[in-house]
Amino acid sequence: MSKLYSPFQGDNILQMYNKKDKISESYEKLIRTFHEIFLVTPYEKISIENIAKRAGMTRVNFYHYFVDKEDILYRTYIDFYRKMESESPTVDPKTLLANGRSLTYYALENTKANIQFYKMLFQNSIPASVTYRIIDFITEESYRTHEPLRKLYKEKFPPYQFVNQCLAGAFWNLIRNLVLSGTDFDSELVSDFFTKLSTQGLPSFLDVGSQKQN
Amino acid sequence: MSKLYSPFQGDNILQMYNKKDKISESYEKLIRTFHEIFLVTPYEKISIENIAKRAGMTRVNFYHYFVDKEDILYRTYIDFYRKMESESPTVDPKTLLANGRSLTYYALENTKANIQFYKMLFQNSIPASVTYRIIDFITEESYRTHEPLRKLYKEKFPPYQFVNQCLAGAFWNLIRNLVLSGTDFDSELVSDFFTKLSTQGLPSFLDVGSQKQN
Repeated sequence: MSKLYSPFQGDNILQMYNKKDKISESYEKLIRTFHEIFLVTPYEKISIENIAKRAGMTRVNFYHYFVDKEDILYRTYIDFYRKMESESPTVDPKTLLANGRSLTYYALENTKANIQFYKMLFQNSIPASVTYRIIDFITEESYRTHEPLRKLYKEKFPPYQFVNQCLAGAFWNLIRNLVLSGTDFDSELVSDFFTKLSTQGLPSFLDVGSQKQN
Repeated sequence: MSKLYSPFQGDNILQMYNKKDKISESYEKLIRTFHEIFLVTPYEKISIENIAKRAGMTRVNFYHYFVDKEDILYRTYIDFYRKMESESPTVDPKTLLANGRSLTYYALENTKANIQFYKMLFQNSIPASVTYRIIDFITEESYRTHEPLRKLYKEKFPPYQFVNQCLAGAFWNLIRNLVLSGTDFDSELVSDFFTKLSTQGLPSFLDVGSQKQN
């Protein structure tokens, strides 16, 4: 007992916590700084030296938290995603809706609120590896939220993941075109379209299709 | 008349044709050479110098036909696509099927036949710009073949292109995962799945969905 509750031990734990806070503070400062630079600088012109310096740190500090420039870009995206998630209403596991709206709706609203970030994300010089890492993340998130549907899946091949891979790829290319077109869009209309296309399929958009269905 | 059919004029035309043949020959030789190198060399290690040299040409010759390394990669993909197209049966404009099979089936068979090319195409170092250019090409091809469906489209917003953008993104992410998983796949099963998902939607894969539909 004396060992567990020695002042030493307590100090160690306190030191650990302080260190953890500092880690998380530095991490977040680097993400914030990168984000600021990313919004206004062509990707190929951003240097790690520059990110670290502006955040009041060194290159060594940077590499303590991130593998490379692509890594901090990916993690900045994840930061956005998590913020969006925490600000959105809870998803009903049965309907997959949050406050009566699909997750696509919230993702589109998030895109609109951070349009400059997304524009830069679709720059020509972004390596495909970052893009694919983000798409894989969206695929996994999609797979996770589909749990109630997955239970009803009856096909032997292909595995259910293929559904989420298709949805993630479709969604990514859709927002890329939306963002790059520069036109304003109604998230409700677009998410309704996407949900219809990916759940009821194309015929529901066609006169023939709707006649057949009615 | 003498002007049009003078031996001079004839010579000029002949010279033009010879030049055109030579252009197309050099272009194809560069594509063929790039393809050979691409299959076995990490993308970032391929130099234009190397491509030109191996094709028996100079860097200047290369830039006569291609803008840069990304451009020749894109055009090599288009070459594959056109070959696949010319080898596939004609598409029925009403059903969008070729010999009873969807275009997805032929695209998947093409992927299998050129699996190493596709593996290299999904390398981490490929710039996103090439990937997006290919996806945009697939979107346009998809839009073109959808002409009979487009005529029946009744929505005001979003425009029909959104359908093809979603399909192209979904297809691209699907084949990426198929290729990178390294497992053999049945093109018929996968294309049936893709067609069902993108035309009838998810419910057709679920017990609940099929009960509702029956």
